[in-house]
Amino acid sequence: MVKIGPSIMCANMGELKDNILRLDRKDVDFFHFDVMDGRFVPNFTLGPDIMKSLRPLTKVPFDAHLMIEEPENYIDVFSEAGADMISVHAEATTHLQRTLQSIRDRGMKAGIALNPATPLTVLDYIWDTIDYVLLMTVNPGFAGQKFIPLAMDKIGELHQMINGKNLSIEIQVDGNISYETIPKVMDRGAEMLVCGTSSLFKKDKTLEQAMDELNLLLSNRKEKLNLY
Amino acid sequence: MVKIGPSIMCANMGELKDNILRLDRKDVDFFHFDVMDGRFVPNFTLGPDIMKSLRPLTKVPFDAHLMIEEPENYIDVFSEAGADMISVHAEATTHLQRTLQSIRDRGMKAGIALNPATPLTVLDYIWDTIDYVLLMTVNPGFAGQKFIPLAMDKIGELHQMINGKNLSIEIQVDGNISYETIPKVMDRGAEMLVCGTSSLFKKDKTLEQAMDELNLLLSNRKEKLNLY
Amino acid sequence: MVKIGPSIMCANMGELKDNILRLDRKDVDFFHFDVMDGRFVPNFTLGPDIMKSLRPLTKVPFDAHLMIEEPENYIDVFSEAGADMISVHAEATTHLQRTLQSIRDRGMKAGIALNPATPLTVLDYIWDTIDYVLLMTVNPGFAGQKFIPLAMDKIGELHQMINGKNLSIEIQVDGNISYETIPKVMDRGAEMLVCGTSSLFKKDKTLEQAMDELNLLLSNRKEKLNLY
Amino acid sequence: MVKIGPSIMCANMGELKDNILRLDRKDVDFFHFDVMDGRFVPNFTLGPDIMKSLRPLTKVPFDAHLMIEEPENYIDVFSEAGADMISVHAEATTHLQRTLQSIRDRGMKAGIALNPATPLTVLDYIWDTIDYVLLMTVNPGFAGQKFIPLAMDKIGELHQMINGKNLSIEIQVDGNISYETIPKVMDRGAEMLVCGTSSLFKKDKTLEQAMDELNLLLSNRKEKLNLY
Amino acid sequence: MVKIGPSIMCANMGELKDNILRLDRKDVDFFHFDVMDGRFVPNFTLGPDIMKSLRPLTKVPFDAHLMIEEPENYIDVFSEAGADMISVHAEATTHLQRTLQSIRDRGMKAGIALNPATPLTVLDYIWDTIDYVLLMTVNPGFAGQKFIPLAMDKIGELHQMINGKNLSIEIQVDGNISYETIPKVMDRGAEMLVCGTSSLFKKDKTLEQAMDELNLLLSNRKEKLNLY
Amino acid sequence: MVKIGPSIMCANMGELKDNILRLDRKDVDFFHFDVMDGRFVPNFTLGPDIMKSLRPLTKVPFDAHLMIEEPENYIDVFSEAGADMISVHAEATTHLQRTLQSIRDRGMKAGIALNPATPLTVLDYIWDTIDYVLLMTVNPGFAGQKFIPLAMDKIGELHQMINGKNLSIEIQVDGNISYETIPKVMDRGAEMLVCGTSSLFKKDKTLEQAMDELNLLLSNRKEKLNLY
Repeated sequence: MVKIGPSIMCANMGELKDNILRLDRKDVDFFHFDVMDGRFVPNFTLGPDIMKSLRPLTKVPFDAHLMIEEPENYIDVFSEAGADMISVHAEATTHLQRTLQSIRDRGMKAGIALNPATPLTVLDYIWDTIDYVLLMTVNPGFAGQKFIPLAMDKIGELHQMINGKNLSIEIQVDGNISYETIPKVMDRGAEMLVCGTSSLFKKDKTLEQAMDELNLLLSNRKEKLNLY
Repeated sequence: MVKIGPSIMCANMGELKDNILRLDRKDVDFFHFDVMDGRFVPNFTLGPDIMKSLRPLTKVPFDAHLMIEEPENYIDVFSEAGADMISVHAEATTHLQRTLQSIRDRGMKAGIALNPATPLTVLDYIWDTIDYVLLMTVNPGFAGQKFIPLAMDKIGELHQMINGKNLSIEIQVDGNISYETIPKVMDRGAEMLVCGTSSLFKKDKTLEQAMDELNLLLSNRKEKLNLY
Repeated sequence: MVKIGPSIMCANMGELKDNILRLDRKDVDFFHFDVMDGRFVPNFTLGPDIMKSLRPLTKVPFDAHLMIEEPENYIDVFSEAGADMISVHAEATTHLQRTLQSIRDRGMKAGIALNPATPLTVLDYIWDTIDYVLLMTVNPGFAGQKFIPLAMDKIGELHQMINGKNLSIEIQVDGNISYETIPKVMDRGAEMLVCGTSSLFKKDKTLEQAMDELNLLLSNRKEKLNLY
Repeated sequence: MVKIGPSIMCANMGELKDNILRLDRKDVDFFHFDVMDGRFVPNFTLGPDIMKSLRPLTKVPFDAHLMIEEPENYIDVFSEAGADMISVHAEATTHLQRTLQSIRDRGMKAGIALNPATPLTVLDYIWDTIDYVLLMTVNPGFAGQKFIPLAMDKIGELHQMINGKNLSIEIQVDGNISYETIPKVMDRGAEMLVCGTSSLFKKDKTLEQAMDELNLLLSNRKEKLNLY
Repeated sequence: MVKIGPSIMCANMGELKDNILRLDRKDVDFFHFDVMDGRFVPNFTLGPDIMKSLRPLTKVPFDAHLMIEEPENYIDVFSEAGADMISVHAEATTHLQRTLQSIRDRGMKAGIALNPATPLTVLDYIWDTIDYVLLMTVNPGFAGQKFIPLAMDKIGELHQMINGKNLSIEIQVDGNISYETIPKVMDRGAEMLVCGTSSLFKKDKTLEQAMDELNLLLSNRKEKLNLY
Repeated sequence: MVKIGPSIMCANMGELKDNILRLDRKDVDFFHFDVMDGRFVPNFTLGPDIMKSLRPLTKVPFDAHLMIEEPENYIDVFSEAGADMISVHAEATTHLQRTLQSIRDRGMKAGIALNPATPLTVLDYIWDTIDYVLLMTVNPGFAGQKFIPLAMDKIGELHQMINGKNLSIEIQVDGNISYETIPKVMDRGAEMLVCGTSSLFKKDKTLEQAMDELNLLLSNRKEKLNLY
């Protein structure tokens, strides 16, 4: 069961309400909000007030990806803004277990995000505190980058670890998720696709057309996978 | 000649295009964009991509207020996103003169922003490198705070310094700029009003109604001032 | 009316209860707690749990001197630990007005602490948000240092500013407050004396003896001052 | 041979001398001092002067657990204050080998402390520079937290690594070490128990009663272990 | 094919031109420039202007070892100064893949430097983005330190990993590379030797004598290795 | 009596010994060493080992300008490297008085360096702890920049303050000190000229020619000044 999550930072920022409502009608599985601090990543995007103002428009879960240093200081803020899931970077917080636990303590799903070069050993002692792992498949901070090849292997290796431990942790992938890369990341075990300019927000298609194509692609894959 | 600048972070974030177009029609003088890094101020708001996507909608100047540490790293980014004016905080950059000069070197107006407690002595040796001074009249980071009393005196004292030196530097004020405080800040010499939830974005009025009232208030004041 | 505040970090750390009770009986005016973070100052001393455990022993006000960076994050903690007054360093917090205001909002007195080299201009726009100014008369971080000569002038200059504005802000002094320096700092307007190893906690005297001598010194001074 | 180390930050801070003397009489194996900087962990506790003032009271080794960033700057200070063992956090120092070596160069035992989520791979190339590993079994910073389940596995896995390499490195555990968890951590190979509010400093028992019960628990365990 | 790279920071700083020219005549394989920021390592050495002024003197590759935090900010600067290879520390940059890729994007070889205690797991997902690994065999920051024993094992283990993956990544070693350690590091697979005060810049030998002895040592080793 | 100090970072880095010896023969008054950390200023230049290796070549005082954060950590290092004078930036150290005092305690002259925008109020309480003030007349970090106009006024204002207090503190200026600016800065009271690419290290002149012209310029000025 693969899930589709539009990346809000790739939407039309002047018409977010419109975009949210149309994507909601197309049954997306979650909305992905990228939060940047200009320090952990060299960019700024959006904050809790934007999330809060969009919250009443849909019942689809809001997923906050905190690309910020010391994310522990902002768990409360995004919880109050309407997040249902929060992922924090392993590279950005000293007390990873405490931070993840505090996300769960507020009734949200806890995710750990990993930069492309970060080894999977950082997961060794937090398997029971996470609901999903966000594997960055580009370096975080900008839309429109190229998929990093070794990230593909990483998805598969993480999938094996999760299966080997018989856990129900989902793998989220973010960065250049396109018609070309989607079949590959799905083959390796990715279940949550963050969809941005490479697949969903495209200049030559409406949101509805793009969603239809994405769904078709996913159903094809699912059928093919069912054959195994 | 007092100028009105709507604070974008107080607009309806789901319908920014609509808000911009309507405010453009009401002849606002500039649009004010608050950028936060979660470190210089404890909040996040918006980034260059939002500014860039709104840039084609209006010819009104875009004013970026960088509430971030080391703003020197982001002058280029906001210049490319469409800013016509950038203010940086004196408290946030070690090489203030260089940072201000680099704003001007890119053809923009350079502003220096001061927290409520920051003394005016920080201006002693940059008078010739600034086009405007942004006096924060609340502590930066959030909408909806109370005007800090001593900030009122500060406006007057800065105005006197500027006049005494016969300079054409504008005073911008930001924070709880309301029907009540506008006459007072104008009396003391403020010329650029950042208008947020206290005056322009109000639950019980349309943007058009609020702008009409604001303009009425300003014209009354101008007439009264003309009498002197 | 000069006040005496024993510096807890100079007390006998193995018998704090005993020391507090004996000093309480001698009618000290406040207890001064130095909190250090190893970064703003190169040392560590004590934390909120020590304050909390001593709180039930006396009704004398507890004064927390936060020699830490970003003190805004610890106002709540020391309020809950029993502090009645908190001073923060002007050099350590970006949003000085907000930090001071937050101390008052919790019902405590707000102080601003200044390193020896810090100019008094930092006070220009916070006169109405402070209850006392702590002038460091040595560089903070350690007991047993020498009084910095220009700090003496600073006391007098601050006193004049306060009088000139007709405010009721107290001047606290900390660092090498001894029998020799006390008359001088009092002459210049200091009203709260933080007493450590130079006057109160001395190897050759009991706490009671030292307090008696201090009180004698102060009453002499007061009489002399009354003559003017 | 399991060792008991009372956690000084859980003792009666008003009567430290009394507590130290009584615990000394009960033959504790080391005294554990938690040092915090408000940055690596969100709290403050105690500093070198407290350690120094207690040093003459006992010959039992003093163990400094530096929960601070850049601990390399404070090795000298705690050595002079009387520490016999110092542990630094792998997450807090860039030059781990140099920092550990500098502890040994001053004649002290060198420990490496690991947060609950930190993988054991950080030990890969420092086996010959450490005398003990402090596995945090709660997130550091506060007393009274719950044991983190995966930390139990970690003890066993570390024990196996140490045995597999035939090294004489001790495993210290800190955090919710109670009557319930002590048998379990001992089974997995922990040899140094930091005892705080969960086992030793309890409201309903004297220090002597608590030590007797702890010793009984340990001797039971030792006998049972001898059977194998 | 082992390569020799003189460490510029160990050369005669008053006669760098002379030293470069003489070493160039002796066919060294690269010049190694240590750049320090006083923060990542506790020292300062040299900067891009020194490299730039020496660049015209030789065609031998310049290798910049950035012992600095956030090296991503200085890739351009050292590229323009004439570097052919740049190594950055895994411990110093959050976005390791991006930083390494940006070195290659400018036509230089990309190296990753590891402190003695850093585990090899940091390499797990960057094998295809690096040209060489610099294993520090002393703690970086100073000349004249002792070889860290476990670093010897690390060379061998890294060599095995590289061979096992059939990659052509070179191993560079830096720190106490002497007549005694050279045979050992070569046996374990090191191919690039950074030569400083332990082998090349010695008080009792000319640069030419030292180079001759080094070359003799290397040829002996190569012959011996050829026997296998 | 105006003093000339060649800026070492502008010398021929490949032939420093030669440059030092030739300038020594021309009776320069001090050698100025710029130390950068890539953080306080965005560049790197040279470190203590370069100073140390040049120290035996001349008896002329060495002046270290520490353009680094937390310079207090490097006073010892540059003292041992042979510095006779050290200037630290007011913007870079929290405990300015302590840092300046520690320079004097090691027998060196203590200077305070000010960025172009830094107000002179930072000097209010350190007049008795400084031997010279380094006024930056360009933003620090690079050679070859333009003189900042308001810095000219600043020299005069500082000179007045020093005269008004009857102190013997020298004013050093650094940045675009050329044939054109030298008469002006001298008129305003500068006494120590840091000479770099604008006056001394010029492509079309030998060091000797440049020094002769500089001396001629200075003697002209002195005669003219004597007329007053």
